[in-house]
Amino acid sequence: MNYKDYIRVIPDFPEKGIRFKDITTLLKDGKAYQQAIEDMAAFVADREIDLVAGPEARGFVIGAPLAYKLGVGFVPIRKAGKLPAETIQVDYSLEYGKDALAIHTDAIQPGQRVLIADDLLATGGTINSTIQLVEKLGGKVAGVAFLIELKYLNGRDKLKEYDVFSLVQYD
Amino acid sequence: MNYKDYIRVIPDFPEKGIRFKDITTLLKDGKAYQQAIEDMAAFVADREIDLVAGPEARGFVIGAPLAYKLGVGFVPIRKAGKLPAETIQVDYSLEYGKDALAIHTDAIQPGQRVLIADDLLATGGTINSTIQLVEKLGGKVAGVAFLIELKYLNGRDKLKEYDVFSLVQYD
Repeated sequence: MNYKDYIRVIPDFPEKGIRFKDITTLLKDGKAYQQAIEDMAAFVADREIDLVAGPEARGFVIGAPLAYKLGVGFVPIRKAGKLPAETIQVDYSLEYGKDALAIHTDAIQPGQRVLIADDLLATGGTINSTIQLVEKLGGKVAGVAFLIELKYLNGRDKLKEYDVFSLVQYD
Repeated sequence: MNYKDYIRVIPDFPEKGIRFKDITTLLKDGKAYQQAIEDMAAFVADREIDLVAGPEARGFVIGAPLAYKLGVGFVPIRKAGKLPAETIQVDYSLEYGKDALAIHTDAIQPGQRVLIADDLLATGGTINSTIQLVEKLGGKVAGVAFLIELKYLNGRDKLKEYDVFSLVQYD
C-alpha cells in the first residue's frame, strides 16, 4: 500500500515553513489504517513484547490499536499533571517548543519488554523522553515504531542504541 | 470479566471530592484491555458502522482500537487549534471546566454511520459536543459507547435520542 497517498501535507502548520504531515486522512480510511497497524505489528511479531507505550495524543492513535493487535497492555505517556496516580516525569524539547512528559510509576514492571510507538519521528525529542521514562522504570525497549519518519530531521541519530522502524519516510 | 477489578479509584483527583476512575490499570493488562474492546465492539456488531469518532486524549485509547477491530476509519476529535486542516468547532462544559472541541470539515461524509466512543460518561458535556460536531457534518450517530458510566451524574439524560452503551457502571 502506498501510504503517502493517504497522508495529507499541510503547508505552514503549526508555523511558517513547516510542512505538517496530517495522518487524519489515513486514519479515516478503514483499510489503510488497519493495514498500517498490521504492518507495524509485523515489525515486532517475534520480539515477545509485554507492553506498548505511546505519548499523547497522536501516539495513542497508533499505540493503542497496536497493543490491541498484539494482545498486550498499553501504557499512556501523558503531559505532566494529567495522570492521576504517582508519576515520574522528564522535560523535553519538541520540534515546536518545550513540555514535560509523565508516566505512572507502576505502569511497567522491571524487565518488561516495551514497544514504543508514535505517529511521527521528527527531531526525536518526544520519543527520547518516552524512552527515558520507560527505562527509568526498568522497562526494556524492545523496539521503536513510527508511522512516519522525517528523515531530513535526523531523529534516528538520537536512537542509535534502539531498533527503529518507520512505515513511511519523507526525504 | 469483572472490569472494576482493573479500574483504580483515585480520591480527590483532579480536585477535592472527586473519585477519579483511573483506567490505566486496565489498559496495561493486555487481556482485560482486549476483552473490553471486544465487548464494546459487540455492541455495534450489526449496526453497519462506517467510522468511529472519539475525543482526545482518552477517547483515542478506546476509539482507535475499536475502529481497528471493526475495520473502519477513526476520526479524532481534538481540542481547538490542534487539527491542521479546515475545522468546525463547538464550545463545551467539562465536569471540571470549559474548553472547545474541533473536527476536520472533511472527516465525515454526509450519511456516514458513526460510532462515538469515549472512556467515560460523566455529565455528558464532552460527548454532547462530539455528537454536535458529527451531526453538523451530516454524520448519523449510530451508537455511543463508553468504557465507564458514572450513573450518579446522569449524563445519559442528555443522550436520550441515542443508543448508549457502557461497559462498567458506578452508582
